[in-house]
Amino acid sequence: MTTTDRLTTATIEADPDLPIIRITRDFRATPAQLVRAHMDPELFAAWVGPKSVSTRIDHWDARTGGSYAFTNIDADGEYSFHGCFHEVSETRLVQTFTYDGWPDGVSLDTMRFEDLGGGWTRMHSQSLLDSFEGRNGMLESGMDVGIDEGYAALDALLADGAVEA
Amino acid sequence: MTTTDRLTTATIEADPDLPIIRITRDFRATPAQLVRAHMDPELFAAWVGPKSVSTRIDHWDARTGGSYAFTNIDADGEYSFHGCFHEVSETRLVQTFTYDGWPDGVSLDTMRFEDLGGGWTRMHSQSLLDSFEGRNGMLESGMDVGIDEGYAALDALLADGAVEA
Repeated sequence: MTTTDRLTTATIEADPDLPIIRITRDFRATPAQLVRAHMDPELFAAWVGPKSVSTRIDHWDARTGGSYAFTNIDADGEYSFHGCFHEVSETRLVQTFTYDGWPDGVSLDTMRFEDLGGGWTRMHSQSLLDSFEGRNGMLESGMDVGIDEGYAALDALLADGAVEA
Repeated sequence: MTTTDRLTTATIEADPDLPIIRITRDFRATPAQLVRAHMDPELFAAWVGPKSVSTRIDHWDARTGGSYAFTNIDADGEYSFHGCFHEVSETRLVQTFTYDGWPDGVSLDTMRFEDLGGGWTRMHSQSLLDSFEGRNGMLESGMDVGIDEGYAALDALLADGAVEA
């Protein structure tokens, strides 16, 4: 597999039979670095979301049974999110996620990190909602911009050596 | 509506289109009492599960962003469960749930309590899984015995005045 086979742009898919969004993305990183990039609040705030926002960590307790809250801030206002961490382990992150602007909506998010060898890791992420309407609404919210720009920022942090190996 | 219209035996339904189990059950209680019965660890341990088990609370922090762990004990052994509380409010409880014997399986459980008037409240519970296989496996695990016997024990606690109004 050459570098050009890598999924360096995220694949975002709607499951045809389940209210699930699946995201697949490769990073030049180890699984442990990707766990750290998602669980360390300063690192997370440095890359998550579209370029147009800055991120404030409101609460952060990244462990199995812990919880988090953060706010994205742009020229138009603030957008807050919160959830709890069901599992924080070396192989899997499982957490709930709510956008506070749609408090009834809760997704159950699972991330797995597959070591591809050669210094590359594939992230398999899924967000499970309790309705297709909710899932489709999330897909149509413009999440792809935040995903593509956020992961590009994470690529840059990894290239800079900002994520401890 | 007469007392005979009350759902004093739980209705357990598999959603035909979504990997969800829905449970509906009426209680002679207020919504606040049902929240308390699920969130107070001593009360919860006193009613949850089939009659054949006793329940040990291993960890309990019932608040938005908290978490829990408990173990059912019967003559054959111990069965442990854990999860985190995404939302603990007067109108809704949202939490994750894993049986430690199937650590890959995670359900997202939501309970709403509808005041029917006349001293009755209807519980609407749903468990969302990420596959139909997982949902069906949970349905076929004999969960109905624990549900029916557990809620009967909760009825008795309510009748005895053990759940503060």
